[in-house]
Amino acid sequence: MNFDVIVLGSGVAGSAIAAILAKHGVSTVLIDRAEHPRFALGESMIPGTSYLLRIMADRYGIPEFDAMSTFLKLRRNVTSSSGIKRNFSFVHHDPDRPFDPAESTMLVVPHYPHGPEAHLYRQDIDAYLYRVAVKYGAEVLQNTAVTEVAANSDGVRVELGSGQVIDGKYLLDCTGAFSLVAKTFGLRETPTRMRTNSSCVFTHMVGVRPFDALYPAERHGLPQALAQGTLHHIFDGGWLWVIPFDNYDAATNDACSVGLHLDQRGESSFDQSQPPEQVFAEFLDRFPEIKDQFTHARPVRPWVRIPRTQYSSTRILGDRYCLVGQAAGAVDALFSRGLYITMEAVNALGYRLIEAVRADDFDPARFAEVERLTQGLLDAHDRVVHGSYIAFRSFELWNAWYRVWALGGSFSSLRFRQAHLKYSLSGDRGHLDALDTHPFVGTICADLPAYQDLFHTAYDIMLSVEQGEIDTDKAVSMLYALYEGKDWIPPIYQLSDPQRRYPSRADYRSTVESIMWGYAEAPEDIRRLYFDFPAAPLFLGIRDAEAAEQHWLSTLGEAAAYPGGER
Amino acid sequence: MNFDVIVLGSGVAGSAIAAILAKHGVSTVLIDRAEHPRFALGESMIPGTSYLLRIMADRYGIPEFDAMSTFLKLRRNVTSSSGIKRNFSFVHHDPDRPFDPAESTMLVVPHYPHGPEAHLYRQDIDAYLYRVAVKYGAEVLQNTAVTEVAANSDGVRVELGSGQVIDGKYLLDCTGAFSLVAKTFGLRETPTRMRTNSSCVFTHMVGVRPFDALYPAERHGLPQALAQGTLHHIFDGGWLWVIPFDNYDAATNDACSVGLHLDQRGESSFDQSQPPEQVFAEFLDRFPEIKDQFTHARPVRPWVRIPRTQYSSTRILGDRYCLVGQAAGAVDALFSRGLYITMEAVNALGYRLIEAVRADDFDPARFAEVERLTQGLLDAHDRVVHGSYIAFRSFELWNAWYRVWALGGSFSSLRFRQAHLKYSLSGDRGHLDALDTHPFVGTICADLPAYQDLFHTAYDIMLSVEQGEIDTDKAVSMLYALYEGKDWIPPIYQLSDPQRRYPSRADYRSTVESIMWGYAEAPEDIRRLYFDFPAAPLFLGIRDAEAAEQHWLSTLGEAAAYPGGER
Repeated sequence: MNFDVIVLGSGVAGSAIAAILAKHGVSTVLIDRAEHPRFALGESMIPGTSYLLRIMADRYGIPEFDAMSTFLKLRRNVTSSSGIKRNFSFVHHDPDRPFDPAESTMLVVPHYPHGPEAHLYRQDIDAYLYRVAVKYGAEVLQNTAVTEVAANSDGVRVELGSGQVIDGKYLLDCTGAFSLVAKTFGLRETPTRMRTNSSCVFTHMVGVRPFDALYPAERHGLPQALAQGTLHHIFDGGWLWVIPFDNYDAATNDACSVGLHLDQRGESSFDQSQPPEQVFAEFLDRFPEIKDQFTHARPVRPWVRIPRTQYSSTRILGDRYCLVGQAAGAVDALFSRGLYITMEAVNALGYRLIEAVRADDFDPARFAEVERLTQGLLDAHDRVVHGSYIAFRSFELWNAWYRVWALGGSFSSLRFRQAHLKYSLSGDRGHLDALDTHPFVGTICADLPAYQDLFHTAYDIMLSVEQGEIDTDKAVSMLYALYEGKDWIPPIYQLSDPQRRYPSRADYRSTVESIMWGYAEAPEDIRRLYFDFPAAPLFLGIRDAEAAEQHWLSTLGEAAAYPGGER
Repeated sequence: MNFDVIVLGSGVAGSAIAAILAKHGVSTVLIDRAEHPRFALGESMIPGTSYLLRIMADRYGIPEFDAMSTFLKLRRNVTSSSGIKRNFSFVHHDPDRPFDPAESTMLVVPHYPHGPEAHLYRQDIDAYLYRVAVKYGAEVLQNTAVTEVAANSDGVRVELGSGQVIDGKYLLDCTGAFSLVAKTFGLRETPTRMRTNSSCVFTHMVGVRPFDALYPAERHGLPQALAQGTLHHIFDGGWLWVIPFDNYDAATNDACSVGLHLDQRGESSFDQSQPPEQVFAEFLDRFPEIKDQFTHARPVRPWVRIPRTQYSSTRILGDRYCLVGQAAGAVDALFSRGLYITMEAVNALGYRLIEAVRADDFDPARFAEVERLTQGLLDAHDRVVHGSYIAFRSFELWNAWYRVWALGGSFSSLRFRQAHLKYSLSGDRGHLDALDTHPFVGTICADLPAYQDLFHTAYDIMLSVEQGEIDTDKAVSMLYALYEGKDWIPPIYQLSDPQRRYPSRADYRSTVESIMWGYAEAPEDIRRLYFDFPAAPLFLGIRDAEAAEQHWLSTLGEAAAYPGGER
């Protein structure tokens, strides 16, 4: 057998790139040691991941990517098993002082124009993308072990467990931590350069109560129900994710994803040598308010432990091979950036590989940006997560620090939105192509110079806290000072006000307000993210805030209502 | 570890019985060597299976069973991945004469009162039922191999791959063909008594075209689109199932289940030693009209071959153990009775086991009816399938024979409906309890004496054809003579008219007509199935046929419309 491209691993990365390649006439084989359906983690969508799906749909001509790019589209086109994600919330717990539900922060996902994000029930999503790859013409081999890989400047070869050999021009490893390509070519970094050092135990459960049933909105004071998004319980030494799939009226899936990340730097206060279910039970005993949420909860999958979730590669590229997504490295589930980093790599690889196959030229220089992007995004993710583990020690520090992440994410969304809008109005694919090159990859905001300084300065403050060079009070005031007086930070976010525990309600009115600010007051490089394109105001479509909110709720329909939560 | 009941296998049977037992305070452990999600066959619901789910929901207090008992309820409560099943259709092919789409028959699933049946995407259904078992309190062990089982009149014990031992009072084997309990106690019948002898190759595909796109309704002359139900292509030597999951407007699952059963009696004209995909390809080459349906089809799973699908057990019961469902035996996917036989066993076992645990008395005599029922239903299934393989040689013979199956199925539904209605109106659980004892188990109709003779006589006619004692023309006229002049067969079915290729349109008007006949003209033992209970007419609810049809369509909503099909 002989193919242009051999793809190992039929998870999201492998199926997505195989679909792209096959669609563009590249003969592609997708090999997996197992089959679908199967469990996978990576359940929480973020706007960046969703924008990349929309962009790849148009850029590569695969509407099936767009069909999974919002909660509403997913439910209409793919599966009823996803949950709704209208926000990220973070509730702080400190065993040494009384629990206060108002020690919490929230980032609301903007309603406009795409509606809420989704909690992906990955077994359905992965199987869907796999079917897409098949439909576009990728050859597939399931339940097929690959025992050896070889690659040099002349070509690549994989040997199967059956002894059969497959030859190709290029090899993509989209598997994961145990990548055979990484092992064969000695690509893993030991020890990893990642500064985050966390372990994880996780499962799916039934019977998890909404935290709002215990501490309703009037007590936490946040704009939305916590259960309508990804809930993070944070504490000194780690965090717990709660990702429900049943959090709207018409839900069909009563499972809830639950995972506990524990910091392993310094002296962990948890005995992690125990079976994972006992690690979780011990954790709950320490935090009675969290335990209440799990009174009736029962796992529907065996608990799994990952001793350390971080790993990385000294390089991800070689002669005719590349590590993609989780095969390249991983940090931590915090901020749900794993799937995003994967999609950035898939998007950047697509045309580079299509053109390399057409030119029959696989010079690694063609793929250098993919390496730079992947490594840089992993480093940026490590920094923002590492800083967060430091911040978990006190609510005040967390409250001051998380704003760095919130701001970077908002600007990233603006960049995607603006480029996609320009493409939609002009049909010029160049606007989309430009997105796969990032001026800045070491932070979580791709191309805004002003943000880079803020990010690195804030991270340095957190490192000083970790080193004991400054105390948390000092760090808190230094962080707020960073937000003060910056003309490029949307004032609506009130980042320098500690009392403001959510940057925006992200409803129609606040969206209009921030656009008006971007148009009228923001400095030049910010303005281009809002109104660089003259027809941009059209994008809003509806001008009356009241009508817009009604329109929004009616679009969302039965999905909006949530028992015990507000709309 | 110590439990009342140890259940092996967390498929539909294992999860359902574990939920029932746990709900009623029986300590239950459910052990499976693998985990969910996973592929499973058994995708086509029949009214008997659906009624059993409704009945078990009320009888055992588990509404989650009812929530999956119709297509509409499934879509609302469980998953969007199921297909709609409004009919069974059978299209005959004979390579020696020109294809005529009118050489086809259809059994329409009655609309009233429950709406259409479903094509189950089993990976979602099995995972759902598994979660139900967990919710009701069953302990679960996944990815857990059982290496040894022991049972005697004092108790049962299983040994796990880990060396750990679990003790219990009773052992249910709900696994399948490779049942460890069957092996340990030497229960398998070798050779099997089943007369059907078929092999099977199957997969899931994308890109399967609706057969109606090639041969629309005006050519086949049947009342509904073939693609809105389970399509059977039948031919001398076997049959092919086509079970779409995307056959309504709001579908989200573009997969289609495809499976080919080949007769292995006598001289098969297919070379079954080839890989399964080649067996299928060779089959398509022989039948160009079927091949057209698969022009763009691609498998999304590896093809699987089962060398022989029939197996059976000399007994299924012993001291403190029982084989349930597929662990006891299996026949053939034709007529979709496997899941039905499983649910009959689960329903019959439930209270018997709950009461045995309460009495701490596991005398096998308590479970004798479960053995009689399972073995009898397997024999009945074997007869109706074996007769069908004989009938596949000519359309005329099939057209005369399939009416035996259609009639038996209809009477079975009436029996369930009547009992469930009586329960609903009286609250007397005795009406439901009575259903788990069957006067007649050797045919496909549980308690109608008149039908038994017809079934056995018709089957004897088919055996005579197989033995070459009579030719097919003779058999055809003998079969039609069986239907002639029987006052207990609803005249609306016109069973003795070869031109009538569907017994009923099963719309509101024909439902009312058959009930009116049942009330006014049917003999006594038939009448009790229609109007034994005085309030039965209330059950219809809507009296005007036109309004009823509109009501029906609006209930079905977006699910009803099907591109290329009628409503």
